[in-house]
Amino acid sequence: MNDANGLLSGRMIDGGHELVARVYYADTDFSGAVYHARYLEFLERGRSDYLRLLGVHHTDLQAGQTGETLYWVVRRMEIDFRAAARIDDILTIRTQVAETGKARIRMAQEIRRGDDLLVTARVEAAVINAEGRPRRFPQEWAVLFETPGKPHEMS
Amino acid sequence: MNDANGLLSGRMIDGGHELVARVYYADTDFSGAVYHARYLEFLERGRSDYLRLLGVHHTDLQAGQTGETLYWVVRRMEIDFRAAARIDDILTIRTQVAETGKARIRMAQEIRRGDDLLVTARVEAAVINAEGRPRRFPQEWAVLFETPGKPHEMS
Amino acid sequence: MNDANGLLSGRMIDGGHELVARVYYADTDFSGAVYHARYLEFLERGRSDYLRLLGVHHTDLQAGQTGETLYWVVRRMEIDFRAAARIDDILTIRTQVAETGKARIRMAQEIRRGDDLLVTARVEAAVINAEGRPRRFPQEWAVLFETPGKPHEMS
Amino acid sequence: MNDANGLLSGRMIDGGHELVARVYYADTDFSGAVYHARYLEFLERGRSDYLRLLGVHHTDLQAGQTGETLYWVVRRMEIDFRAAARIDDILTIRTQVAETGKARIRMAQEIRRGDDLLVTARVEAAVINAEGRPRRFPQEWAVLFETPGKPHEMS
Repeated sequence: MNDANGLLSGRMIDGGHELVARVYYADTDFSGAVYHARYLEFLERGRSDYLRLLGVHHTDLQAGQTGETLYWVVRRMEIDFRAAARIDDILTIRTQVAETGKARIRMAQEIRRGDDLLVTARVEAAVINAEGRPRRFPQEWAVLFETPGKPHEMS
Repeated sequence: MNDANGLLSGRMIDGGHELVARVYYADTDFSGAVYHARYLEFLERGRSDYLRLLGVHHTDLQAGQTGETLYWVVRRMEIDFRAAARIDDILTIRTQVAETGKARIRMAQEIRRGDDLLVTARVEAAVINAEGRPRRFPQEWAVLFETPGKPHEMS
Repeated sequence: MNDANGLLSGRMIDGGHELVARVYYADTDFSGAVYHARYLEFLERGRSDYLRLLGVHHTDLQAGQTGETLYWVVRRMEIDFRAAARIDDILTIRTQVAETGKARIRMAQEIRRGDDLLVTARVEAAVINAEGRPRRFPQEWAVLFETPGKPHEMS
Repeated sequence: MNDANGLLSGRMIDGGHELVARVYYADTDFSGAVYHARYLEFLERGRSDYLRLLGVHHTDLQAGQTGETLYWVVRRMEIDFRAAARIDDILTIRTQVAETGKARIRMAQEIRRGDDLLVTARVEAAVINAEGRPRRFPQEWAVLFETPGKPHEMS
């Protein structure tokens, strides 16, 4: 798979990650615009592909590569729906790490269509094990989410 | 939960099961009608609730109640989209067993809005274990899907 | 349709609305729990059915009953995912009006499984016309969202 | 947008179209595999992007470019779920025109992961106007779906 343009998994940009995705029938609702909960799926793709380019794969986590089965979960989300995306639109999803802690990470995300800002979100994510218990991040991740010039720490 | 009217899990009817469900924003697309793949979710609810009323619960199967972890999967579907459902519509999902075998079951399903027939489907379902391998139906199910007057057998 | 138990469209409770709904395959993800964006669909059902019992129907709004075509849209959402729902779970969605303005309404919502609080959300909603322009609420709604003892006003 | 590798809208191949897409959390269910109805969304993306590369855009159809507002709808689908896709999988969706008529088109589609054939589908699609009435295909499409060596005609 030649993904030189980053169209499949997106690409790293200054301070974060950028993914391009298309709006299809499945994303829209009868108002003519994208259904509000479907923007969360675009945001999930952005976060998953950002992690993927950092070397963190859902399959590896499930397989217990870091010690036990782990799953990423969203703990909290603040999301502003500023303008509507429509069928056939090409969206750009930008993801940045805002803060990292020992067991939580906060990401700032936005969805644009060209220069138009459609959605902004603050997402707090964590990992749980197979029994659903919260877990600290694996130690090997410590360096992954360091954001140069933004040395934030969450408790 | 008083489900006397069968509104939560539906109810057994002559030769099958009937469930009532509402169309919400999430089910529709920008054409104004229900998105075609969302009808499959209504059909899944019908099958799941039919099984539930027969005493077959997804949670029990996952927990290995019948010997090992089992999941229902859809193997094949023929579906005719005859007329469109729209926002706020109240749909009736009817599910009947058409044929049962040792490891497969065929169900005939339809979705109506009042007297209007919107969708008909033939669904072939089976069970797999946690590794994804096909499994025979648990023996205790042998009597569940017997349809009086329709003693079909699948190979 | 005998909906005496409120299982189809929910029921008005002190200061709000309550709807019961089931978790199906379609709502879950490979972690074993409900996919985070699907909780937003349960919340949408709660809000839509609350409006329905107040006499506000999406079909009427689309048909221009209040003057021109109107659609409800979500403007902002803060959502806390506290605990996970799983397959077969029966969820209760509670919806309350927190604040109303001339063109915006804020609702407080929660999803419970029995006594367990799974999700809490603050949702800001508004109406737009067919061109996507924000509109004031129709005058006849002025009395609908008055919450006795909570005479909040949004600008 | 440099889509030289066809990763955003796919690419024309001998006798059809090919699109590559990723499996995310949103596509999976608690069994660990992709939820059966979500394969229909991957198939829709394949058909939509095939049409797009032929010059047929949903936005143009909705805007009445060919005379009146038109929407594509799926009329019938036969789908075989042969093997399961899982989180992080990269899927290839292939779409071919099998038969065209004056108001209906039949497409043959398949979803593969590498060499593994996961899903095959026969999809019958048509166009309707804003009132939901079936319409003949616009004349300018007559040449679009001609498949060299496969001069099928539907009544």
